[in-house]
Amino acid sequence: MSSEKRIITISRQYGSGGRQVGALLAEQLGLPFYDKELIGLAAEKSGLAEELFASAETNRSAVNFGQIFTGVWYEPPLSDKVFLAQCAVIRDLAAKGPCIIVGRCSNYVLRDCPNLLNVFIYAAKPLRIKRAVEVYGEAKEKIEEKINLMDKKRSSYFNYYTDLKYGHPENYDLCIDSGYTGVEGAAKLIRAAWEL
Amino acid sequence: MSSEKRIITISRQYGSGGRQVGALLAEQLGLPFYDKELIGLAAEKSGLAEELFASAETNRSAVNFGQIFTGVWYEPPLSDKVFLAQCAVIRDLAAKGPCIIVGRCSNYVLRDCPNLLNVFIYAAKPLRIKRAVEVYGEAKEKIEEKINLMDKKRSSYFNYYTDLKYGHPENYDLCIDSGYTGVEGAAKLIRAAWEL
Repeated sequence: MSSEKRIITISRQYGSGGRQVGALLAEQLGLPFYDKELIGLAAEKSGLAEELFASAETNRSAVNFGQIFTGVWYEPPLSDKVFLAQCAVIRDLAAKGPCIIVGRCSNYVLRDCPNLLNVFIYAAKPLRIKRAVEVYGEAKEKIEEKINLMDKKRSSYFNYYTDLKYGHPENYDLCIDSGYTGVEGAAKLIRAAWEL
Repeated sequence: MSSEKRIITISRQYGSGGRQVGALLAEQLGLPFYDKELIGLAAEKSGLAEELFASAETNRSAVNFGQIFTGVWYEPPLSDKVFLAQCAVIRDLAAKGPCIIVGRCSNYVLRDCPNLLNVFIYAAKPLRIKRAVEVYGEAKEKIEEKINLMDKKRSSYFNYYTDLKYGHPENYDLCIDSGYTGVEGAAKLIRAAWEL
């Protein structure tokens, strides 16, 4: 592992096994692993949402607001405060040292960090349905609807908070179809990219 | 190399070095290598364009026309005849045995083949400009215009002849930013995927 390489971010389609790929990789590389739940909890517990918003009202340059504050100044809804707090948590985690971060637009949030490896994990819908039912224990009859909704939510979240397009290869260094590679295979390819 | 794996197709952005990745890979894996020039020449020399079009007029089911003949029957322009002839050449080459094919919508043309590995190679525009000037010897002052035109042409070609969207990860098993990996690195990752 090159000491130059520091952070791996993983974006993923629901049901692609991207979170599992990240967890396996963290174990294999001996790196801390953060997913959206952990980042969300850390942001809530830290009280950063309130703190950041208070400073944002008096000093716009105190935080890097990205696209959401481009153009007209407006009062962001609660989810924007949470997003800002999550950005701060992600930046703090990244500053601490090498780690793997899944989700939360982390490739965008950390775009100015050197030595990022940004990965997107996806798979064909029938395989995602199969994984969601068999591995995540989702109900078979409602799973296609849930996947469509999750695709829409993740895409809207990403497109709203970044100036990139969700799932376009140009946002990533590597995009892997986990239907081709499996979870272990995807981890193997990411390790190979990390070690280049 | 698993004997089950047969064909690697490579789609690529102009200036990404995708053709070079394919050529290097062919050398490393000891596989035949076909690019768009070779396929185009083979199609022209074979006289297949005329032959296919003659049979197409009398027997639509003789060739798999894909999207271009969906809906209303119409006389295809010359480029469509050439495309059909190229499809036939690609299918013939694939039927002969394991090989590497760059371009010509080969991932789409061969979509019913088992054991394909479909790869997309891309890179950020500044790096593609640098490669086009330094490696392909293109004139610096006109290269951005040429890259924009090539992007448009490849995307139109792909979107016209397939029912897929050019450059969307879902069309490929693996998408690699050659700006991150370099040509050798990209070949290494494809080999790793091929050997899974």
